[in-house]
Amino acid sequence: MTQSHFQYHVFFCLNQREPGEDCCMNKGAEAAFDYMKKKVKQQGLAGAGKVRVNRAGCLDRCEVGPVMVVYPDAVWYTFVDLEDIDEIVESHLQHGKVVERLLV
Amino acid sequence: MTQSHFQYHVFFCLNQREPGEDCCMNKGAEAAFDYMKKKVKQQGLAGAGKVRVNRAGCLDRCEVGPVMVVYPDAVWYTFVDLEDIDEIVESHLQHGKVVERLLV
Repeated sequence: MTQSHFQYHVFFCLNQREPGEDCCMNKGAEAAFDYMKKKVKQQGLAGAGKVRVNRAGCLDRCEVGPVMVVYPDAVWYTFVDLEDIDEIVESHLQHGKVVERLLV
Repeated sequence: MTQSHFQYHVFFCLNQREPGEDCCMNKGAEAAFDYMKKKVKQQGLAGAGKVRVNRAGCLDRCEVGPVMVVYPDAVWYTFVDLEDIDEIVESHLQHGKVVERLLV
């Protein structure tokens, strides 16, 4: 068995559907992605053996979006604002503690 | 803790860099992605509780690409041809057996 390359690998649904359709991109996903990527880097968490924040196509959970998933934990989050992103980074990615209130 | 939404969640690096640069997209990643997605569907493996095959941005492993990662196992594969994709689907996704020869 190979070793995990990242401690946490986060995928954001950044699929763009038609305007008005249920879609993470129409609900602030890209700004949240940009913010999380920057924050993870600023905190010194980015890189091999640590955290990777990734773009992804449609994660097929449009109805509960915007969503991200944190692997290998397979924890799915939804989020409203950038404070939610702060909390996921500080609680889950830095201290391994799931943010229960943001679970899908 | 939330439940895993997919038994296996596969991400393909489909990031496009400049022509000539080391990049999964310049090494057949998109054809392999299309093929795997179709194959997983044909085998009845696609869907919630089962398998999801996803596009992703750069997975930051360009030097060993093309790559995919299978979560929650955190198993990284590289591949050369569509027979490799067949083997990953049949061995890993259908029978839970890692394909050692294709590990990154």
